[in-house]
Amino acid sequence: MLAAPSLLRSAVRTTVSRRGIAWYHSSAALFVDDDNKSQSSPNVKTYWADPQLRQYKFWNRYDKTNQGKYQYLIDFSPESIQKEAKILSLSDPDDAANQPLHNGSLPMGASLMGIGTTLADFEPYRDAKPNVLFVSPSCPRAPAVLPLVLAAFPSIEWIHCRSAGIDFIESDEFTELATSMSIPVTNAKGQFSSSLAEYALMACSYFAKDLPRLMRNQKNRNWEKYDVEELRGKTLGVVGYGDIGRACAKLATVYGMRIIALRRHPFLSKDDPYCDVVYGRDKASLNRLMSESDYIICSAPSTVETRGMVNADAFNAVKKNAVFINLGRGPVVDEQALIEALQTGKLRGAALDVFTEEPLPSSSTMWDLPNVLISPHNMDQTSTFMHEATEFFLHENLPRFMVGEDLLNPVDPTLGY
Amino acid sequence: MLAAPSLLRSAVRTTVSRRGIAWYHSSAALFVDDDNKSQSSPNVKTYWADPQLRQYKFWNRYDKTNQGKYQYLIDFSPESIQKEAKILSLSDPDDAANQPLHNGSLPMGASLMGIGTTLADFEPYRDAKPNVLFVSPSCPRAPAVLPLVLAAFPSIEWIHCRSAGIDFIESDEFTELATSMSIPVTNAKGQFSSSLAEYALMACSYFAKDLPRLMRNQKNRNWEKYDVEELRGKTLGVVGYGDIGRACAKLATVYGMRIIALRRHPFLSKDDPYCDVVYGRDKASLNRLMSESDYIICSAPSTVETRGMVNADAFNAVKKNAVFINLGRGPVVDEQALIEALQTGKLRGAALDVFTEEPLPSSSTMWDLPNVLISPHNMDQTSTFMHEATEFFLHENLPRFMVGEDLLNPVDPTLGY
Repeated sequence: MLAAPSLLRSAVRTTVSRRGIAWYHSSAALFVDDDNKSQSSPNVKTYWADPQLRQYKFWNRYDKTNQGKYQYLIDFSPESIQKEAKILSLSDPDDAANQPLHNGSLPMGASLMGIGTTLADFEPYRDAKPNVLFVSPSCPRAPAVLPLVLAAFPSIEWIHCRSAGIDFIESDEFTELATSMSIPVTNAKGQFSSSLAEYALMACSYFAKDLPRLMRNQKNRNWEKYDVEELRGKTLGVVGYGDIGRACAKLATVYGMRIIALRRHPFLSKDDPYCDVVYGRDKASLNRLMSESDYIICSAPSTVETRGMVNADAFNAVKKNAVFINLGRGPVVDEQALIEALQTGKLRGAALDVFTEEPLPSSSTMWDLPNVLISPHNMDQTSTFMHEATEFFLHENLPRFMVGEDLLNPVDPTLGY
Repeated sequence: MLAAPSLLRSAVRTTVSRRGIAWYHSSAALFVDDDNKSQSSPNVKTYWADPQLRQYKFWNRYDKTNQGKYQYLIDFSPESIQKEAKILSLSDPDDAANQPLHNGSLPMGASLMGIGTTLADFEPYRDAKPNVLFVSPSCPRAPAVLPLVLAAFPSIEWIHCRSAGIDFIESDEFTELATSMSIPVTNAKGQFSSSLAEYALMACSYFAKDLPRLMRNQKNRNWEKYDVEELRGKTLGVVGYGDIGRACAKLATVYGMRIIALRRHPFLSKDDPYCDVVYGRDKASLNRLMSESDYIICSAPSTVETRGMVNADAFNAVKKNAVFINLGRGPVVDEQALIEALQTGKLRGAALDVFTEEPLPSSSTMWDLPNVLISPHNMDQTSTFMHEATEFFLHENLPRFMVGEDLLNPVDPTLGY
C-alpha cells in the first residue's frame, strides 16, 4: 500500500473508470480502444498476446481489425498497487519523445524524480531512493554514465530502455552490475516490428516487381510489359528471429512465402505458426539458410556473438538471384563482403536500412551500387514511434512494476537482447 | 460411361496413381504437392477453399505454408467420368500460354478438336459435336466471332474464358446467346489475385515510405532521416470486392489495416473475416468509402454498370492525403477526374496498372505526374500466370465438367463478371 499523500498527488492526473480500472490520459490515444473498453467487463483480463505463443506476449499496441483484438487491461487500482515508482530518466531533458514521461501524466503512485545525462544531475535525489531507471537513446554517454548511476543508486530495482537494441548502453561494467545486482532490464521491442515488417515486404517487392525499371520506363514514357516475380511460393530466410523477424514472417506467410528462421535458441520457435523451418545459430545453418532463401532478412541484434556473422562465407553460399535485406543492426553484416557479393552479382540486390557506420559516410561505395536500396535507418521512424515507446513504458511496464506483475520485454544484459 | 476407344486413346497420356486418382502431367508442377499427395488417403477430398467462406471456393493453386494447405483432389477415374469433353479453342494457335491445351496432355476423356480465330477454322468439326469452348485473350476478334461460333455449334455446353475480366469477349449478341442457351460461362479469376495483392501493398508502401524520396536521396548521397508512415492502423477502401480485392484485403488485414469493401452484393461479404465494413455499390456509399479511406484500391471489373463509376464526385470526396490504386480495369475510373485530383493535390498519389487506353498513349499527361506510379498492366504478369490460367482450365474445371461437379468461377454474362 502506498503512502496516502503520494497517491493523492497523482490521483488527480488519472481517470478511474466506474469499473475500478484506471485509464491514463494519453495524447497518443493508442492505449485504449473505446469500443473495447465499453465491451470489457470489470476485472476481466485479456492479454496483449499471441494466443499461440506465450513468449510473444509483447505489447503489440492497438490493433483493431477483424483478425485479432488483443488488449491488456491491468487491474490498476489503489488496492492493487504494491509499491510506488520513483523514476530517474537518463535522457536529454529536451528529448521530445520522452515528453509523456517528462511532462505528461504518470500513473498514480508513480513520480519522476530527475532527468539528466550525468551522475551529477541525479545527486539531489539520493535520499529519495529512486527505484526505476529509464534510459533513452538521447543519452549519448549512457555506456559511461549508466554504471555510475547504478553504483550510486543501489535502490534501483528495474531498468527500462526506450529502444529495441540495447547496444547503445552496452559496457562490461553495466553487464556486471546489472547481473550482480539482479536488476531486471527491459526494452521497447515490439514497438518497431510492424513498421520494419512493412519495410521488409516493400523491399522484397521492390526487387520482385523491379520497381527501378518501372520508374525508369515511366520517365521515358515506355510502355514495356515485362514479367514480374511473385513472392508467393518463394522462400524467406530470417536471420535473427526475434520480434521484428517474426513480424516479417507473419506478413510473408500470408503472401504465401515459405519461412526459414535462424535464432540462438531454435526451440523457442518450434511451434511458431509462421516458421516452416527453424535453424540454430551455427555457421553451417546460416550458410544453409543463405543457400535456400530467395529473400533474406537480417534482423539480428548487434552483440558480441553476432557481429560480422553474415560474412563472405555466407554470401558465397547464397542462392542465385537472392535479395538481402538488413533492418536489424549494421555490424551484424560484413559490409565489405556484402559489397563484393553485390558487385559480382552473387546477390541480385540488397535493401539496407542499417550500416556499420551511421550516417553512412558519403564516401561509401554503397551509395552508388545500382542494385542497392538505401534508407537512413528510418524505416521504423514513424511520427509516433518514439512517443509510443515511452507510452509503452508508462502505460504497460510501469503499472506492471507497481502492481507486481511480470514485466514485459525482459532483456538479458549478458546477451544484449 | 465413355466409349472405350476414346478412353484408351487418351489414357496413355495420363498417370493413374495406385490409389485410383488420376494425376496429370504438368510442366508447371503447380497442381499437386508431392507431400500432400502422399499424405492424402484415397478418395478423400479436400477443397481449394477458404474454410470460412464457401463463395471463395476458387482455385487457389499450390500454397504450401504453415497457414493453410488447400488442395482439391478430384476423384477422376474411368468410373467417375460422366462425359467426354470435346474442345474448341478460340485462340491464336501460336499463343504460347495455351500450349498445355494445344500440345499438352489432356485428361483422359478429353480431346482438342480445333483451334482457330474464325468460324471457318471450326467448320471441319461440325459433325464431332464439340461441347466445350475455350476462349483466350489471344483471339482479338472474340466479340464478333464468339456469337457466330455459338450459333453454329448448338452442342456447346460450357464456355471457359482464360482471363479474369471477360470484357474482351463482351457483346450484346454473346450475352443474349449465352443466356438463352443457358450455357455456363467460367473464367480464370483467382489466377491473378495474389500477384495483384502483392502489387497493391507495394504501392501503398511506396507512398507510405516515400520511396521516390529515398531513391532521390540515395542518388545525392543524402542521409536524410525523415518520418515514414505506417500502413498499420490506416483504412483501406476496396472498390469492387471480388477475388482480387479480397486478396488485397487479406494481406492488408495482417498489416493491421482496417478494410472497407464496396461491392454490388454486400451480403456476399457480410461474414468475411477480411472486411470491417461492406457497402453496396451506390453513389453515396462510394463517396463515403472515398472519404474514409487512406488508401483506395479499385479492383472492379469493367461493365456497363461500373464504367466511369469513380468520377470527379468520388475524387472530390477523398480524405486528405489519400492514395488511389487502380489494378482492375481502366475504364472504371474517369481518368480526367483522376488527373485533376492528382494535379490539385486532392490525392497524395496514385499507382496505376490499368488505363482506359492501353498502351497508355505517349502523349498522356499521366506519364509526367510526379505523384503517379505507372506500370504497363503487367503487375499480374508473372512468368507462369497465363500458363497457370490454362492449367486451371485443364486440371480443375475440365475434370469437374467431365465428372459432373460444379464448375468453379462461374461468370454472369449479363453482369460481365
